[in-house]
Amino acid sequence: MTTDNKLAEEALRYHSEERPGKIGIVPTKPHRTQYDLSLAYSPGVAVPSRIIAQTPEKIYDYTGKGNLVAVVSNGTAVLGLGNIGPLAAKPVMEGKCMLFKTFAGIDAFDIEVAETDPDAFVRAVRAIAPTFGGINLEDIKAPECFEIEARLRDELDIPVMHDDQHGTAIITSAALLNGAKIAGKEIARLRVVVNGAGAAAIACARLFLSLGVRRENMVLCDSRGVVSAHREDLNPLKREFATPRRISTLAEALHDADVFLGVSKADTLTPEMLRTMASNPIVMALANPDPEIAYDTAVVSRPDIIFATGRSDYPNQVNNVLGFPYIFRGALDVRASKINEEMKLAAAHAIAALAREPIPASVLRAYNLEKLEFGRSYLIPKPLDPRLLCTVATAVARAAVESGVARRPVADWDAYAERLRTLAE
Amino acid sequence: MTTDNKLAEEALRYHSEERPGKIGIVPTKPHRTQYDLSLAYSPGVAVPSRIIAQTPEKIYDYTGKGNLVAVVSNGTAVLGLGNIGPLAAKPVMEGKCMLFKTFAGIDAFDIEVAETDPDAFVRAVRAIAPTFGGINLEDIKAPECFEIEARLRDELDIPVMHDDQHGTAIITSAALLNGAKIAGKEIARLRVVVNGAGAAAIACARLFLSLGVRRENMVLCDSRGVVSAHREDLNPLKREFATPRRISTLAEALHDADVFLGVSKADTLTPEMLRTMASNPIVMALANPDPEIAYDTAVVSRPDIIFATGRSDYPNQVNNVLGFPYIFRGALDVRASKINEEMKLAAAHAIAALAREPIPASVLRAYNLEKLEFGRSYLIPKPLDPRLLCTVATAVARAAVESGVARRPVADWDAYAERLRTLAE
Repeated sequence: MTTDNKLAEEALRYHSEERPGKIGIVPTKPHRTQYDLSLAYSPGVAVPSRIIAQTPEKIYDYTGKGNLVAVVSNGTAVLGLGNIGPLAAKPVMEGKCMLFKTFAGIDAFDIEVAETDPDAFVRAVRAIAPTFGGINLEDIKAPECFEIEARLRDELDIPVMHDDQHGTAIITSAALLNGAKIAGKEIARLRVVVNGAGAAAIACARLFLSLGVRRENMVLCDSRGVVSAHREDLNPLKREFATPRRISTLAEALHDADVFLGVSKADTLTPEMLRTMASNPIVMALANPDPEIAYDTAVVSRPDIIFATGRSDYPNQVNNVLGFPYIFRGALDVRASKINEEMKLAAAHAIAALAREPIPASVLRAYNLEKLEFGRSYLIPKPLDPRLLCTVATAVARAAVESGVARRPVADWDAYAERLRTLAE
Repeated sequence: MTTDNKLAEEALRYHSEERPGKIGIVPTKPHRTQYDLSLAYSPGVAVPSRIIAQTPEKIYDYTGKGNLVAVVSNGTAVLGLGNIGPLAAKPVMEGKCMLFKTFAGIDAFDIEVAETDPDAFVRAVRAIAPTFGGINLEDIKAPECFEIEARLRDELDIPVMHDDQHGTAIITSAALLNGAKIAGKEIARLRVVVNGAGAAAIACARLFLSLGVRRENMVLCDSRGVVSAHREDLNPLKREFATPRRISTLAEALHDADVFLGVSKADTLTPEMLRTMASNPIVMALANPDPEIAYDTAVVSRPDIIFATGRSDYPNQVNNVLGFPYIFRGALDVRASKINEEMKLAAAHAIAALAREPIPASVLRAYNLEKLEFGRSYLIPKPLDPRLLCTVATAVARAAVESGVARRPVADWDAYAERLRTLAE
């Protein structure tokens, strides 16, 4: 049996054994005696309900709303599987919920939506939004995902984030910040090529601009080559990044480039292209499961490469789990009305900064590693690093407060951070 | 401090202490190591997702759908509080979810819907239905609740039940069956007066007909008096039960009646009216918190009364928790596409039959009772009776199979019942 077959068999066993699925709903308060139930339900429950009817924000004091995130998908762009629909998306969404709880103590519940039309999708999510403290949109195809996210952000007063876009952008940005540091290059002078012009690619490109990359130093490529101002076939999103340069191929774009970000498909970056890049090239090859260039090929072709992929079996895995649990943790804790640009940047910088700190022995043990130091093989933190919670959530919460979208003050940031450290243990 | 103030204070403390709310979402599979997470999420999760994409019913093998019920409300008719809206309804719905888990091991999740228009409400619930194995509608006002339930039942292939209607009807029917037995009267000859013409009252009246009560022996009363064929102001629901008799007041209707069911308000049944009823009158006075006639007044006025209320501090509490957890347990276990009349009748008969069995010592202890025997003071089981799960769920599951709405066979009913008995312990 090959490893892949073994993984497949184990995955099916894992999902089906005992009760099918991966998440359950449990009482968090006493519920065994008649008296307990008279508090939890009629007549006791009328007391908090009456108070909330008068003062709606009291819902955060008496229900789980403030720690509750919906993981919402219509299954139109699931992992590498494509448009498999809402039912087939459910295992993925349940998995995401499990990650929210495991990494950040957030109660997350998956909602599979049988609507592909953006308007119908938005109406369904808006209708059920009173239930939740935040909404994580997931695996929704472009271009619908843009309208869906934009409208829900506008129409709801709770944080809404399409993780495929912004989660990816945040982790990629952290890798870019540290890659530039290792390469000894300034962000403002980086020449960046983004291969792919889908939802995640556009979100990464936008956050790179917020980080300080100059628009004139950025080139986007799609399946037809360079997204250039000379092309006639560009949608408004691509037009935003169209280059005035008279180049048309990825190979031309990569000549002397400092950064390659691939959100495209396997083997689109050849060793020949890689060899034409500037010194210490930063290559983030995120196609999954097979990156735009294989690890071994990449490091042989360019021994000075700074290389990240989406895979857990090579160094520098760009994994959204480094972001979304903690971004929502911070946003929920200060009751942010939005996840704004300031909060995303704060998350990217916090993730990057953590990789520059000495790594705890417990994290090394979790990965069976002897040692690991900030550098080419350790650009971004490991997913099981328990420091992420306190570091990233605190940065996000502070950014929310400072940018004016928080609705709940934090009196003592040290106490807040300490509570998160305790939660992580 | 009065008892009510003490309960209010305790209820607020209960809802707010530690993490606010009463339910949480937890991983049910291993999730601590990188390997665990590679099964739960990418790449392992792609395996069940691919299978479900090809064979949709496999969703029941690899996700929690088959044990997952949505408790859905728009908060338009919450307990005795009225139209308090979706936010203020959340504590009640979370409480209901807790009851589902506590009594039947069902993962239930509350969904508060910000739509009062039936069409918009139906569209929202239909959109998110792929998530769930069943839908418990709750605290939605009449007449919208009828259209909402009817449309969702038609349009979805999972069980949908408005508990305020059918849960109440089932428990009331159980009380009626046993009340008639104690009174020594035949169901087909009972003269029944239903006071109230809202959603629950109509549902009770309909299920009474299914039990064998004759339509010509039934009189409905609303706030204007008897619902009679001579009135011009009847909606179609009331018209279904309009009596040809030339009577107009509740007092007239009750003369020589065998049964009074009140789903109305406090003090609508006077001692004078009660005294005109037939021998061994069966009175179910469900107005909450104060019934249509007070317990003490009722038993003094008619020592031969067979009396049930909605209160836990008097005998014979008509409490929906005797029904909904087990009805959904049975329906989910055989993957019923509906909760049909056969299943509701089976539930009512099973609940009634259980009260006629000797009560276990453990149940007596839970209520600090010395003894309790089938009779006027013990018409229906106690909510904490662990036998309810096996008894009622098995009856409902069997009825689903026999009436052709089950989609999953049960090979061995004894083994099924045994599993439920174990679950109850």
